[in-house]
Amino acid sequence: MALVVQKYGGTSVGDLERIKNVASRILRTKNQGNQVVVVVSAMAGETDKLIRLAKQITSTPNERELDVLVATGEQVSIALLAMTLRAMGTDAKSYLAFQIKLATDSAFGRARIMGIESDKILTDLKEGRIVVIAGFQGVDESDNITTLGRGGSDTTAVAIAAALKADFCEIYTDVEGVYTTDPNICPQARKLSKISYDEMLEMASLGAKVLQIRSVEFAKKYNVPIHVRSSFTDNPGTIVCMEEKEMEQVVVSGVTYNKNEAKIEIMHVPDVPGVAAKLFQPLADANIVVDMIIQTSSTTKGFADMAFTVTKADFAKTLQIVKDNLKTIGAEKVISDQKISKVSIIGVGMRSHSNVAAKMFTAFAKEGINIHMISTSEIKISCIIDAKYTELAVQALHDAFRLDEPEISEEQ
Amino acid sequence: MALVVQKYGGTSVGDLERIKNVASRILRTKNQGNQVVVVVSAMAGETDKLIRLAKQITSTPNERELDVLVATGEQVSIALLAMTLRAMGTDAKSYLAFQIKLATDSAFGRARIMGIESDKILTDLKEGRIVVIAGFQGVDESDNITTLGRGGSDTTAVAIAAALKADFCEIYTDVEGVYTTDPNICPQARKLSKISYDEMLEMASLGAKVLQIRSVEFAKKYNVPIHVRSSFTDNPGTIVCMEEKEMEQVVVSGVTYNKNEAKIEIMHVPDVPGVAAKLFQPLADANIVVDMIIQTSSTTKGFADMAFTVTKADFAKTLQIVKDNLKTIGAEKVISDQKISKVSIIGVGMRSHSNVAAKMFTAFAKEGINIHMISTSEIKISCIIDAKYTELAVQALHDAFRLDEPEISEEQ
Repeated sequence: MALVVQKYGGTSVGDLERIKNVASRILRTKNQGNQVVVVVSAMAGETDKLIRLAKQITSTPNERELDVLVATGEQVSIALLAMTLRAMGTDAKSYLAFQIKLATDSAFGRARIMGIESDKILTDLKEGRIVVIAGFQGVDESDNITTLGRGGSDTTAVAIAAALKADFCEIYTDVEGVYTTDPNICPQARKLSKISYDEMLEMASLGAKVLQIRSVEFAKKYNVPIHVRSSFTDNPGTIVCMEEKEMEQVVVSGVTYNKNEAKIEIMHVPDVPGVAAKLFQPLADANIVVDMIIQTSSTTKGFADMAFTVTKADFAKTLQIVKDNLKTIGAEKVISDQKISKVSIIGVGMRSHSNVAAKMFTAFAKEGINIHMISTSEIKISCIIDAKYTELAVQALHDAFRLDEPEISEEQ
Repeated sequence: MALVVQKYGGTSVGDLERIKNVASRILRTKNQGNQVVVVVSAMAGETDKLIRLAKQITSTPNERELDVLVATGEQVSIALLAMTLRAMGTDAKSYLAFQIKLATDSAFGRARIMGIESDKILTDLKEGRIVVIAGFQGVDESDNITTLGRGGSDTTAVAIAAALKADFCEIYTDVEGVYTTDPNICPQARKLSKISYDEMLEMASLGAKVLQIRSVEFAKKYNVPIHVRSSFTDNPGTIVCMEEKEMEQVVVSGVTYNKNEAKIEIMHVPDVPGVAAKLFQPLADANIVVDMIIQTSSTTKGFADMAFTVTKADFAKTLQIVKDNLKTIGAEKVISDQKISKVSIIGVGMRSHSNVAAKMFTAFAKEGINIHMISTSEIKISCIIDAKYTELAVQALHDAFRLDEPEISEEQ
C-alpha cells in the first residue's frame, strides 16, 4: 500500500464530466490498495474570470481581497469533486487551507508555504477516506487567506506530499509529461521518462510551463518524487526526482526557448568598481527582474560593454531608466533589441562532459545563426539569437544532441 | 457616533454597479460619523446556480460539501465589496466566518449560530476601518463550513449586531419594509413604520418573506432593533423592535396568507388517551412538519374528528402514512383538500381587545367565505378557507380592520 498525492489542474476538472473522470481515476488508485490525497485547482478559466471581475472595479485591486476572491475557485472544485466521489459510493472529505492549517507567509498573490498540520488528513486516510484539498491557497498567521501564484496548486501538492511523507506525488495536467523540447515547433520532441530536479528547475524557469518552479524546489528540498502525467490517458509521464548516476550519461536532456525577453546593451561603460551597481540598482528599485547579464571588455582600454535582458513587459520602463542614468554612469550609448529569443540546452551530464558548448555553437554556425549573447551555468547553456531563428535553432540543437533517440548511454 | 450593522441582500449586490451603489451608501453612513459593519449575501442567483451544479452530480449532494460549495457565493461578494470600498479611498477589510470564529452547530444547511469573537472587528472599527462580513455561513467546532439556510445572512447580521452591542441593525432588501399585507393582492397595503418582534415572527412564519424568522428570534432575544429598508431608495423602512405601549392601540398590524398548505381530516377517531400520539408520531418520524392541528368532538359520543395541515410538498407522503395508520388508530376515514389557503390577522393589540375574532368572521361572512378551520394564539387568528377566496379574504380583512389608515390610536 502506498500513500499517493494526486494533483489535478484546471483543465482536468474543467466541467462536471471531467470531474467525474478524475473521480474514477482517483477511485481506481484507491481500489488498487492505495491511500489517496487529492489536490485540485480551480475549474479552467475560473481564476481568470474572477480576476477580470476585480479589474473591472479597479486596475489595482487590494491584494488581500483579491486572494479572498480568487480562492473561491478551488473551493468550488473541492466541493464538487468530494460530492462526486461520495455519489460514487466512496467516503471523501474536502479541506480548505484554514482547515488543515496550511500556513504561509503574508505575501498575498505569491505566498510561500511554511507548514501544514497533517493530523486530520492522516486520520481520514486511516479511516479509508479520500481527502480532497484546495490547491493554490493558504492562510497566514492572522488567518488571512493567501494564494501561491500561478501554478501554486503544484506546490500545494508537493508540500502535502512532503508533510505526509507520501510515496509519490502525481501531477495530472493536460500534457503527457516533460518533453525534450516544445513539440509544437519540433515534431521530433520526445517525452522524457525521467529528469532530475535541477534540470526541471532550469526547464521550468526557461519557459517549459509544466510545473510551477517553486513546486520543484520544494520537491527537491524534501526529496518528493513527482510524476508529471496526463489526466486524459493512462500513459506514464515523466518522473522528476533526485539526480541518479545514469542521468549523467545523457549530456543534454532538453532544449528550451523563450521569446519573451528583450535585450539592452550599454556601450563604452567606464570599467571602474561600482558601475554595475549604479546601473542595476535603479532597475531593482523599480521591481524589474533582470535575467541574463553579460559584461565584456570594450575595444577601448578602461571601458567595458554591458548587455542584459528583461521581459518584454518591462522593456520600455527599463530603457527609460537606463537612458536617464546614462550620464551618471558615464557610458556612451544604449542599443536595444526586442526581436530576440533565448535558446538553451539543459542537462546534468554537462558537468562531466566537455565540448557541449562547442557542439551547440557548431550547430548554430551550420545554420548560419548568429549568437548575440552567451551565458552558461553548471547544467545549462543559453544563447540569445535573432527571434526569427528560434524554431530553426531549437530543431538544430534537438538534432545535434540526438534528443529524438531513446535515453540510452551516449558517447560524445 | 453610532455602531451600525448593515446587511445587503443578493439583489442589492447583484452586479458591480449595484455593489458600487451599496459602497456609496456605506461610505455615507460612515461619513456621518458612524462605525459601520456590513454583512452581505451572495450576488443574486449565485447560490441557486451553485446548488444546480451540485444537483447535476447527484440529487442528494453530501450536505457538508454542499455548504463548502455554496459558501463561495458570499466570499465573492465580500471581496468585491471590500475592494470597491478601498478603491473609493476608504479602509475596508473582509472576513469569512472562520476568521471571526462565527461558531455554529454542525447542522449543515440549517446551522444555528452559537457565538462570535468580536475582538478583530472592534479593533478594525477603532482604527477607522469598515468591516465587511460574509453572511449565511459559519464554522462548527471542527472547523467545518456550515450555512444557515435561506435568508441566513439576516441572522448573521443580527447576531453580529448583538455581539457588538450595535445601536441598530439595518437590513437592506428589495422591498421598502414590512407591509400590512401583500401589496400584490391588496393595493391599499401600507408600509408599517414599527412592528414588534412577536408580530414580525408571526408575519414571517405565515409567509411574509422579508426577514428570516431566526433573525427575528435572535433580535428579540438580544433586543437588537432591526430597520428593514430598501437599498434602492432613501425612504425609511420598518423598525422591528420590542413591544411598546402604543403598539397595543393598534389591534391588527397585518394580514397574511399562505397558499402552500393542504388539509387532512380524519373522521371518527376514538376519543381515548394516546390516539393523537399514534397519529402524529409516524409523521414526525418522517420529518413532516405539521402546522395547524384541530380536534373537535364527533357527532358520535366517544369519538372525535381531527384535522391538520401540512405543506403541499409533504401532502402525498402524509396522506399515505395516515392511510396506512388508519386501522391502528381505529378511525373511520380520511378526507383531504389541497385547494385551501390560510389567512391570518396578527397584532399584539389582540391581547387587550375583545371581539377581534368576531370582527374577522363577520368580514368573511359578508363576502360569503366559508371557514374550514380556525386556530388562535395570543396575537394571531388564522382561518383555513377555500383557496379561491384568498385575495378576497385578505382585502376584506384589510378593510375591516382599516389597515390602510395611518397608525393612530383606534377604537374598536
